[in-house]
Amino acid sequence: MSEVKGYAATSELSGLAPFSFRRRELRPDDVSIEIEYCGVCHTDIHFAENDWGRTNYPVVPGHEIIGKVVAVGNDVSQFTVGQRVGVGCMVDSCRQCASCGQGLEQYCREGMTPTYNGRDRHDQLPTFGGYSDGIVVAERFVVRVPDSLDPAAAAPLLCAGITTYSPLKHYGVKPGDKVGVIGMGGLGHMGVKFARALGAEVTLFTRSRAKEAEARKQGADHVVISTDPDQMAAAREQFDFLLDTIPVPHDLNPYLDTLAVDGMHILVGLIEPIEPTIHSRALIAKRRILTGSLIGGMPETQEVLDFCAEHNITCDIEMLDMADINKAYERMKQGDVKYRFVIDMKTLK
Amino acid sequence: MSEVKGYAATSELSGLAPFSFRRRELRPDDVSIEIEYCGVCHTDIHFAENDWGRTNYPVVPGHEIIGKVVAVGNDVSQFTVGQRVGVGCMVDSCRQCASCGQGLEQYCREGMTPTYNGRDRHDQLPTFGGYSDGIVVAERFVVRVPDSLDPAAAAPLLCAGITTYSPLKHYGVKPGDKVGVIGMGGLGHMGVKFARALGAEVTLFTRSRAKEAEARKQGADHVVISTDPDQMAAAREQFDFLLDTIPVPHDLNPYLDTLAVDGMHILVGLIEPIEPTIHSRALIAKRRILTGSLIGGMPETQEVLDFCAEHNITCDIEMLDMADINKAYERMKQGDVKYRFVIDMKTLK
Repeated sequence: MSEVKGYAATSELSGLAPFSFRRRELRPDDVSIEIEYCGVCHTDIHFAENDWGRTNYPVVPGHEIIGKVVAVGNDVSQFTVGQRVGVGCMVDSCRQCASCGQGLEQYCREGMTPTYNGRDRHDQLPTFGGYSDGIVVAERFVVRVPDSLDPAAAAPLLCAGITTYSPLKHYGVKPGDKVGVIGMGGLGHMGVKFARALGAEVTLFTRSRAKEAEARKQGADHVVISTDPDQMAAAREQFDFLLDTIPVPHDLNPYLDTLAVDGMHILVGLIEPIEPTIHSRALIAKRRILTGSLIGGMPETQEVLDFCAEHNITCDIEMLDMADINKAYERMKQGDVKYRFVIDMKTLK
Repeated sequence: MSEVKGYAATSELSGLAPFSFRRRELRPDDVSIEIEYCGVCHTDIHFAENDWGRTNYPVVPGHEIIGKVVAVGNDVSQFTVGQRVGVGCMVDSCRQCASCGQGLEQYCREGMTPTYNGRDRHDQLPTFGGYSDGIVVAERFVVRVPDSLDPAAAAPLLCAGITTYSPLKHYGVKPGDKVGVIGMGGLGHMGVKFARALGAEVTLFTRSRAKEAEARKQGADHVVISTDPDQMAAAREQFDFLLDTIPVPHDLNPYLDTLAVDGMHILVGLIEPIEPTIHSRALIAKRRILTGSLIGGMPETQEVLDFCAEHNITCDIEMLDMADINKAYERMKQGDVKYRFVIDMKTLK
């Protein structure tokens, strides 16, 4: 096993601090990666601070990982040393259930193995994430990074990108569709870019007029101020899809009313339980759909990177030194980042 | 205008009693129908007793109508005198919006005109339903009844039938799919028949062991007693579709857990608001869908009658004399009917 450097939280209140630990010896299908960049996802904060009550300390967050292959196991066939690769939110799954068979490892019947705060399925050791200078991952859970993508700005594609791309693609957003993106954070701004690239007419729903110009810069055709009853009334029954990226509880009913017949409201933020509750009439009277979507499977994760290379899409990022991670968390809690911090892992060395 | 006999409620507490009223003169596209049979839907009780606070008295319920054409307007092209026809839950719509253009008149942008307790779009007079010996309806809202169908048993197809057929067909239930039907009343027993006819493996969810044998008789392959935690646990992640026919508020969460990845929970009973609320995780973690469906459009209403003729499907009914309608309502409130009362309109004469 090889020792790596990283940053870990050791308690709910510790914040993140330097932490050395070991990565496993390569199994036959493993890829060893020297991490160059790691995006900072809001989920990282939830785990570092145990907001969901299921953190196992020490926790090394980070699941938007870009790096270079430095070694491969004997059976690895897809990757070679020197290649630039990515790792997202999961590093393993049962690989045998119906979902895994369809490349939907995120919906694995046994549950996927998360990149951090999980347990390896073979040695039962904790998984540690990308706030680190190296990681070892089975090749099935590694993707190629096209050369034309800026590697730092590609990092958030592994979570914020695939999370928004997957449902738009899966549910068949096509040219001419009217897509509303709710919320303009790390996920929302990617949702705007993808919906636009898929040919949709894109509307951003935001509470704040301050984000209007920015939304248009990102590619939104229209902006609806969700706190303005007149604007919401004018949006009634207009949309084919709503991509709802708000990560905290909010009232879905006013948004459901903006969906046309057969329109679909897609949740990508875990806001359980849904409070206030929704009215069944909003679904029945117009055959509307409420659904949710969780990141994306490995084939689709490769697809989103290729799609971004083809359409020249990356995430808008702010580079971060590893030592400034605690300050970055504070700024993220204020919504003060456009739109994703990415750690430059050189600053860890 | 011609005078017809019928039964109406005149107040929340009146019950139903004989009531004479007039049907309009035929407009060019109208069909005049001598009513032979009318099914009794639970919705009729809600309107007769003003459960939803929007009844305009007097109200003549009934929207599962079978009869014979006795006259047609000058422009009628689809129907001739003597033909057996049906009328369901709606008698008009704007006929111009996108939904009407797709034959989805039930989702008309301006709102459909209900068969009773509505207002005619032209003369603004109240609409009166099928507890009557005659009705006048625009031909677009009239369907042909295939000769091979028992006309009395076909009546409930106009509401209970189309309500359950439409979502199963629209969402593409196909041979091999696992379909759960929740509830075994007028709608549920039709849902079992349709799901089976579409080739699905059908499970009935019911609270009561008493309905187990009956469910199998109707075509269910399996029965799950929803009050038995072990049976519900064994059903986890099994189903592609749930057709939820329960007409009163109930907890959807245990049912959502029985859906496989990409599974769909379809509400056909208005249970607003959804209490207790659902958990977003149930949708996101398995990309499940919650949706609703409202009766069916006119082309699909014709289709369900043709489908039933082809597959030899009718509703299980109990014939009723018009004068016994109040007793029938009391029995329906106790769930004491297998599975639909149908009024023999000869008993009104």
